Amino acid sequence: MDKGAVKMIDQRLLPGRFRIVTVRTYKEMARAISNMTVRGAPSIGAAAAYGMALAWSRGEDLDKAAKAIRSTRPTAHDLFYAVDLMLRQRGKDLVRAANDYADEIVSMCRKIGEHGAKLIKDGDRVLTHCNAGALATVDFGTALAPIRVAHRSGKKVFVYVDETRPRLQGAKLTAWELLNEGIPHAIISDNAAGHYMKDSVDLVIVGADRIARNGDFANKIGTYSKAVLAKENHVPFYVAAPASTFDLSIKTGKRIPIEEREQDEVLTLEGRRVAPRGSVALNPAFDVTPSRYVRKFITENGTVLPKDLARVKR
Amino acid sequence: MDKGAVKMIDQRLLPGRFRIVTVRTYKEMARAISNMTVRGAPSIGAAAAYGMALAWSRGEDLDKAAKAIRSTRPTAHDLFYAVDLMLRQRGKDLVRAANDYADEIVSMCRKIGEHGAKLIKDGDRVLTHCNAGALATVDFGTALAPIRVAHRSGKKVFVYVDETRPRLQGAKLTAWELLNEGIPHAIISDNAAGHYMKDSVDLVIVGADRIARNGDFANKIGTYSKAVLAKENHVPFYVAAPASTFDLSIKTGKRIPIEEREQDEVLTLEGRRVAPRGSVALNPAFDVTPSRYVRKFITENGTVLPKDLARVKR
Repeated sequence: MDKGAVKMIDQRLLPGRFRIVTVRTYKEMARAISNMTVRGAPSIGAAAAYGMALAWSRGEDLDKAAKAIRSTRPTAHDLFYAVDLMLRQRGKDLVRAANDYADEIVSMCRKIGEHGAKLIKDGDRVLTHCNAGALATVDFGTALAPIRVAHRSGKKVFVYVDETRPRLQGAKLTAWELLNEGIPHAIISDNAAGHYMKDSVDLVIVGADRIARNGDFANKIGTYSKAVLAKENHVPFYVAAPASTFDLSIKTGKRIPIEEREQDEVLTLEGRRVAPRGSVALNPAFDVTPSRYVRKFITENGTVLPKDLARVKR
Repeated sequence: MDKGAVKMIDQRLLPGRFRIVTVRTYKEMARAISNMTVRGAPSIGAAAAYGMALAWSRGEDLDKAAKAIRSTRPTAHDLFYAVDLMLRQRGKDLVRAANDYADEIVSMCRKIGEHGAKLIKDGDRVLTHCNAGALATVDFGTALAPIRVAHRSGKKVFVYVDETRPRLQGAKLTAWELLNEGIPHAIISDNAAGHYMKDSVDLVIVGADRIARNGDFANKIGTYSKAVLAKENHVPFYVAAPASTFDLSIKTGKRIPIEEREQDEVLTLEGRRVAPRGSVALNPAFDVTPSRYVRKFITENGTVLPKDLARVKR
């Protein structure tokens, strides 16, 4: 944040166009979160913190700003975590607080990368879903962080990138990040994940949008399918997430609200209607994966078994 | 087939445009099969039979025609079955033979519909993948046949239609067929199938492209994923297919060749590149589902347990 403005990549235009948007008010920030200019749970958290900082620096009502920001998207916990963190620092310099929060996310992501890289062996083929990379987390990534660290340390890593319909964050954003870093990868339709899970995928790493106390977690729609396929094929399934994604207020995944997005994300492709006029779509943006499918959580404090989560968080 | 020409719907243009193409030679037919103007295992079989009939009616070399048609697509068994059937009738009127074959497929589909409809209860919500409807089978369908019969008999049926990336046969063709028949349905991204399998889907019905002696079967990429999700959620999973789809020459699904199609089906959407330049895709068109995931096969002779397949076929 600089001179009362926050600059962000417009993630809706990647990889075709790289455009920086400037956000000057909390209302603009709320819009940017809800229309997915910025997306990915940790990045949404940082955007929310900066939204509060913008309100503070303009002398606006912080409770009103908090309400507007909280109402943008229901599933990612980081959003609510960041807003609460800012409200608890009421009276202090919230620009500094937001900067500290964003820096902290990046530092957590680096630690997630270091801990997670130990799970990746030389020559491993990793499957990932959606985008839990630098774009989703201010920098470095959650699910992509261990892949980056493994690659930089000289391990050979190949990534199967689920395209991740309906919004294609895999084909558009994850592929773009991997390409920029020179990490070998192939994009696959979400339908092909099972086929490759049978004998080609060595491990799966995904991010998370909200993790309940028992380890059930919400993530991009389709994550649950990949978790079930991984279990069926004895492929280890890892969830990479920082502390801000853990929601200690809820016991199980049943209490995680699932955002239902507009039908047109499914019925149209790149602005062109593909489905017949008259057909409708259902479009849940997230699903909940029970903790029993998770081999380990990769956090900034190390890897944790689902059964040890409650103890660790305490 | 009429006056030396076969008229077919160009399935690549649906649901946006309804265009009839006229095919006059076996070479044109081979092209129509390989570029997916016509698709769906039983329809491919009928197209192959008519391709042979066109060659016969023009006095062309049947072995050459057989070779050209066989080399179009490797996975669907009906293609090879139909070509062999025509070759065995060498010397007879192959136009009549092809007409008989097409009629027989439709009659088998009607029987599949009658047998399969008994598995659908009033109020059931059925999930299907890809298009195994009238378009895929000359008329009536395999997976959609039981749904049609149940609907026509007054049962309330709701269909979850997997959009079926990369070619979207679900969103484009299955939705179009259901809409035309007034059957309530919703299109979902393939990623959402698992979410709905948890507590909304009562049964799954899919078609097949080739079924091995032990009941392992190939079908559109993503079918395996849905089968695993169905098993995990105790949802019965049915496979609807006529005799022409059973390949008695192979023992297990390991021997079914899987067609790898062009990368652009994944990397572009409606003609526009979505993935970054430099990224590649893997695009298997089919996957193999082991028979242990199949509750029952729905055939023209009734429903069959996987373990009874070998006995029944003998």
